[in-house]
Amino acid sequence: MHIVVDAFGGDNAPLAPLKGAALAAGDGVTVTLVGNEEILRRVAKEENISLDGITIVHTEDVIAMEDEPRTILKAHKDCSMAVGLRMVAEGKGDAFVSAGSTGALVMGATFFVKRIKGVPRAAIATLIPTASGRPSLMLDSGANAECRPEMLCQFAQMGSVYMSRVMGGGEPATVGLINIGTEECKGGELQQQAYRLIQESGVNFVGNVESREVPFGAADVLVTDGFTGNILLKAIEGTAGMLMKEIKSLFMSNLLTKIAALLVKSKIGVLKSRMSTSEHGGAPILGVCRPVIKAHGNSDAAAIRSAIRIAGEFAATGVIEAITEAAKGSTSDE
Amino acid sequence: MHIVVDAFGGDNAPLAPLKGAALAAGDGVTVTLVGNEEILRRVAKEENISLDGITIVHTEDVIAMEDEPRTILKAHKDCSMAVGLRMVAEGKGDAFVSAGSTGALVMGATFFVKRIKGVPRAAIATLIPTASGRPSLMLDSGANAECRPEMLCQFAQMGSVYMSRVMGGGEPATVGLINIGTEECKGGELQQQAYRLIQESGVNFVGNVESREVPFGAADVLVTDGFTGNILLKAIEGTAGMLMKEIKSLFMSNLLTKIAALLVKSKIGVLKSRMSTSEHGGAPILGVCRPVIKAHGNSDAAAIRSAIRIAGEFAATGVIEAITEAAKGSTSDE
Repeated sequence: MHIVVDAFGGDNAPLAPLKGAALAAGDGVTVTLVGNEEILRRVAKEENISLDGITIVHTEDVIAMEDEPRTILKAHKDCSMAVGLRMVAEGKGDAFVSAGSTGALVMGATFFVKRIKGVPRAAIATLIPTASGRPSLMLDSGANAECRPEMLCQFAQMGSVYMSRVMGGGEPATVGLINIGTEECKGGELQQQAYRLIQESGVNFVGNVESREVPFGAADVLVTDGFTGNILLKAIEGTAGMLMKEIKSLFMSNLLTKIAALLVKSKIGVLKSRMSTSEHGGAPILGVCRPVIKAHGNSDAAAIRSAIRIAGEFAATGVIEAITEAAKGSTSDE
Repeated sequence: MHIVVDAFGGDNAPLAPLKGAALAAGDGVTVTLVGNEEILRRVAKEENISLDGITIVHTEDVIAMEDEPRTILKAHKDCSMAVGLRMVAEGKGDAFVSAGSTGALVMGATFFVKRIKGVPRAAIATLIPTASGRPSLMLDSGANAECRPEMLCQFAQMGSVYMSRVMGGGEPATVGLINIGTEECKGGELQQQAYRLIQESGVNFVGNVESREVPFGAADVLVTDGFTGNILLKAIEGTAGMLMKEIKSLFMSNLLTKIAALLVKSKIGVLKSRMSTSEHGGAPILGVCRPVIKAHGNSDAAAIRSAIRIAGEFAATGVIEAITEAAKGSTSDE
């Protein structure tokens, strides 16, 4: 398996992608790092990171978080992300991984890698940690603020294929529609029409899911528009972040609570890492012709290694072929 | 102050409303309980609850959580909620409190109490506990799944008046628009247009607020459509509920963690009650001509007492007069 990695994407670039790539190379993966070769060789030397099994493709430009996503098509068409995407599009690599700007990655994937025929919009699918230990895949989580019912139905199909093949060992995935109540009549036009379309689409549909149930693992795949998905995802992140902070400060209040902290420290650490998004490897961009994985912006080396592993599984399990097959029946191409 | 209370609304009715009313009567409030008099007198006797300062208005019917909200207008027009709303509409009481069905309460408030002229839709405003210790008021949190930009602007104005007068001691309230990014251009048509309208409306607008910041207390008033509000509210509830459960089970794992639990028990209790919605008294239905407060469905006696106190402050602080004045300039009446 040959994975192309954006060496200059994310908060911890280029060190985390470099270290992550070295770890993946150690796992037997062929890795190409895209980015400024001089800097990469210097950092590798300074940090004593082996470049065995790693090829570097040189490019100088980088697209930043604050750059407009569409600049990847013109002003930043030779940034590390764009060059990597085009490599994978041309078959020079099996999958692409970047921890850079999500908007730019969706834009670049759509225009350089291209959408699958019959898929009107690519979606970002994000893994949400749950109490059940098994993460849920939510799509769309921000690429398309406004969606039509047919798009939600296609998200259901794409997510179902991905979760079943990449995360579920072939077991059929359950699919839920994010809504403000469980009854079929709930929500607006979008939800009501999407409900009927998903019900007839052949996926393992469990019906509407209220956001309250999401952290408990209500379904393997959670379908929603990008606006709602983004609100939901960040609400979970924010609430968990706030509570963890409150609990930390609670443990620091006096000597007795500090003793208590020592007694539960390792278990709190396990809970924190279970709740962390970086443990779960990265979010696929679904609906484009080649495997593209978005790693979390704050990914460390372990998260990049995990994203590279997931990218390999994404490429190996025929997800894109299955989505292409399913989309053939679709009439919703633009 | 004279508060009318639905004695048969909520999961713990009639005991919690009865006890809560008795506590409020002890605080010096005149309370009318609406519901089956025979049952109320029997329960009061069995539980040794004093009915001093409490009047009972007898009615036999009750609207249940599973009843369609609109049935309050016809099939259940004589339920305890409907009778109480009509009393307050007719001036037989200063405010109404119910822990019953939210949908039915909004429907009943809209048709029995009537909307303020110039307000196209009533909104449910919910208090969200935050890390800052000062709750945020979010509206709409579920009454109107689909909203127009003018409605969001009116929610901003109504919420601002309520938070400033009832919760803020007259200090101007900050107002944020729930969105998927902080920049003005973020979100769909609804958010972009609402942004401009709110900016020109004269409220203390702090701009877009991402859901991630909500648990930290991003603004006093959070404006959004009812679909997004409901998703956000339940995501916060679900995540907090899940984490508290995980932490509880973590403390139960072995002898050492059980000792740790004893050392931090009281502080965890304080955190839990700070995060609890029932501590904050109840959610106003804004946009109707008389004060109506929705208490949480699982309200206990203390929560009902607190809702009665808030209902009194709502009635005493001229909120409805100020909203009526602000709505006069509006052209968005239906």
